[in-house]
Amino acid sequence: MLSKSTYLNRRLTLKTKLGGGLLLFLGNEESGMNYRDNVYSFRQDSTFLYYFGIDQASLTAVIDLDNDQEILFGDELTIDDIVWTGPKEAISEKAAKVGVTEVKPASALGSLLKDALSKGQTVHFLPPYRGEHYLKLQEWLHINPAEATQKASVSFIKAVVSMRSYKTEEEVAEIEKAVDTSVDMHLSFMRETRAGMTEKEIAGKLQSIAIGQGGDISYPIILTVNGEILHTHARDLAIRDGQMALCDAGAETAMHYCGDLTRTIPVGNAFTTIQKEMYQIVLDAQEAAIAACKPGILFKDVHKLASTKLVEGMKQMGVVKGDVAEAIEHDVHTLFFQCGLGHMMGLDVHDMENLGEQYVGYTDDLIKGTAFGWKSLRLGRALEPGFVLTVEPGLYLIPTLIDRWKAENKLAQFINYEKLELFRDFTGIRIEDNLLITETGNRLLGKELVKSVADVEGLRG
Amino acid sequence: MLSKSTYLNRRLTLKTKLGGGLLLFLGNEESGMNYRDNVYSFRQDSTFLYYFGIDQASLTAVIDLDNDQEILFGDELTIDDIVWTGPKEAISEKAAKVGVTEVKPASALGSLLKDALSKGQTVHFLPPYRGEHYLKLQEWLHINPAEATQKASVSFIKAVVSMRSYKTEEEVAEIEKAVDTSVDMHLSFMRETRAGMTEKEIAGKLQSIAIGQGGDISYPIILTVNGEILHTHARDLAIRDGQMALCDAGAETAMHYCGDLTRTIPVGNAFTTIQKEMYQIVLDAQEAAIAACKPGILFKDVHKLASTKLVEGMKQMGVVKGDVAEAIEHDVHTLFFQCGLGHMMGLDVHDMENLGEQYVGYTDDLIKGTAFGWKSLRLGRALEPGFVLTVEPGLYLIPTLIDRWKAENKLAQFINYEKLELFRDFTGIRIEDNLLITETGNRLLGKELVKSVADVEGLRG
Ligand SMILES: [Mn+2]
Ligand SMILES: [Mn+2]
Repeated sequence: MLSKSTYLNRRLTLKTKLGGGLLLFLGNEESGMNYRDNVYSFRQDSTFLYYFGIDQASLTAVIDLDNDQEILFGDELTIDDIVWTGPKEAISEKAAKVGVTEVKPASALGSLLKDALSKGQTVHFLPPYRGEHYLKLQEWLHINPAEATQKASVSFIKAVVSMRSYKTEEEVAEIEKAVDTSVDMHLSFMRETRAGMTEKEIAGKLQSIAIGQGGDISYPIILTVNGEILHTHARDLAIRDGQMALCDAGAETAMHYCGDLTRTIPVGNAFTTIQKEMYQIVLDAQEAAIAACKPGILFKDVHKLASTKLVEGMKQMGVVKGDVAEAIEHDVHTLFFQCGLGHMMGLDVHDMENLGEQYVGYTDDLIKGTAFGWKSLRLGRALEPGFVLTVEPGLYLIPTLIDRWKAENKLAQFINYEKLELFRDFTGIRIEDNLLITETGNRLLGKELVKSVADVEGLRG
Repeated sequence: MLSKSTYLNRRLTLKTKLGGGLLLFLGNEESGMNYRDNVYSFRQDSTFLYYFGIDQASLTAVIDLDNDQEILFGDELTIDDIVWTGPKEAISEKAAKVGVTEVKPASALGSLLKDALSKGQTVHFLPPYRGEHYLKLQEWLHINPAEATQKASVSFIKAVVSMRSYKTEEEVAEIEKAVDTSVDMHLSFMRETRAGMTEKEIAGKLQSIAIGQGGDISYPIILTVNGEILHTHARDLAIRDGQMALCDAGAETAMHYCGDLTRTIPVGNAFTTIQKEMYQIVLDAQEAAIAACKPGILFKDVHKLASTKLVEGMKQMGVVKGDVAEAIEHDVHTLFFQCGLGHMMGLDVHDMENLGEQYVGYTDDLIKGTAFGWKSLRLGRALEPGFVLTVEPGLYLIPTLIDRWKAENKLAQFINYEKLELFRDFTGIRIEDNLLITETGNRLLGKELVKSVADVEGLRG
């Protein structure tokens, strides 16, 4: 939890951004796996954490702008509960620490909202993403679940995004803690990975580091020798010499700020020649992209810059031919680089993704693309001081995609399909770091984590 | 996945138990933590796994008894999806492996159920436990979420319980795999725990063992120096010499069969004298309880036997006085042993808990108790060959509860409250093993995990 004044100030600013009505903040519930009481690790809603800071299930907060009230709804433990849970800090004590003085039982919320609706107050809520959110919105506001997302308040969303996008010093410090733990996870991966281990075994080890440092993983770990598969889980598969292992893993702190790093290493002691060349292409693209990140530049253009570097590299490899700028205009890069260069990061690893990518990563004047490749770019808008984001180019050789393009002879003026066949089973490489946009440029967050070919191989000795 | 004939036979048996209507099996969805796509580790519904074996999100199955049909509903990956996920086995292929030949798109389910309702077919469903279950039942069957639990089909519940309660040889083999992994977790705990480590650090390590062996934890690990707090999470708290550490942790296999073991160890090399005496009381109670488990005995009576042993021990310690049998009739044991002696275990660690404890652990003629202590006993019914269950007595010195009883001078004829004060901060001990009821008695499952004072201290050397 941050200081009381932080939360008071955040809510004050939010209130000035929204003229009137009632703001509804749905805290998350415990979430049962295979029955109600066998729960996943609790994760509070990030916007709830941002304005109210209380990391506990079954809370709802209301800011009534028309009547200048802030109320937290939740049930205190009974003496019977305390026998099972041990003594715990009361909700009212936690509320006091974040400057909220009014705490009411959960059952009081329904009638408050009923009153508000009957008086014609607008009730603003954010887009739901858990089943329980839909059920609550239906019960309290009579919102049909099928319409809940479209009925979310755009002014509330925009106000939240306009605040959470700019990280304060204390937030950056907490994010750096998360990145530092993420670095420790990657150091373990880079030093201790050996042929014969399974992907799951390595992933489990990395998660234990995140938990051991007081938090948890900020997203499911991607740990794979098939880095070209972008949505994948660690498998019971022994990794082998000659392969590369890609690890995309990050920690979140106890306060739920996130880190998100990726490294790709040889399973053996050293990269093969071709792995080394391809790795260097990705690293050059990443370093060029990072160097370009500064206030005012469209991240969309940084994505294009990285894509250009990747295509230049693939031209060197003989796979792309013709004019590179023209190739980029034709989206040739999407054959190797199908996803986005990066995303905002904060209390969520894809920060505020639940609020809508158009609102978070774009603006009223800059609409998110719909073409293959571009539609996966979560962040396109001009960078500003205080933004924290990832830069994560990659080269992904996807047999299914190669076959499809080849069958269509797609963009054959730019692609040497015969040469491409040699890379069919190359798999994938990604390198990802986290950075803060400063007044003049940017700063890499967290402890250093090596990434040059020589340094990576140095850790594999 | 087990063999095709296993699933075919299970469904055949289920069908003979239910006369008519349509059986609806809700598979689970991916579950978002802080936004939709940042998902918890997927956990399929256990009853879905039992009859259909497919460990994949967003599936629903229907058995139409009136028209003799078995249909699986779910959407195959599109070619676009395969670019992101890599090639995967089709639902229809998985369905074939469990003997289901009819697979339809998810969108076809709504109209099928609408037809069924309009024809007056009874649609049987099981009690919901995730938000999504309520939303689906509402959308497809117009069930008000507030009424969904009470509208669940009792005949369907009883039929499922009458099958899942009896573990076959192949299920027992899979449970033993889970217990073996759980033993490995506990060996790590018992050998490697050292003063100065944090509870979270140790818990993280144990989870990595479960993941590394191809599955995951079967429930959130309890790892604490406050074993008397029954609902607790590992903390960022360094453990100290002189304390005891209690670890209640189990793995589930890739097929989702569970293990559930508890051991309590000294943080230092050896128990203190008083810890040793109290530990021995719990161990004696556990061994007496295990020896009593055989077909025909009410588990309720085994719970009473264990409670008697615990009270006898506390009498030796000078805390209980008077006639032990009489003390038990007055529930004196609930001052030290507030929870149940054990529970069924299988595809769920508390097996079938989502179907209702009355149906799983009791019978039409044996109703679950409501008094303090007894209401926490999940299993009371007569044991039968094929049941797999836990036996887990403990001694829990809960300051809040002690204060409350003392203030009321409750059962003062049996309790030496002055002496009890000496144990106020003793914390708690639990010892838990998993066993299979056989034709003649029972068999402990999994590799041996030591539990005598001497053997435990031997591992702490
Ligand atoms: Mn990322
Ligand atoms: Mn148990």
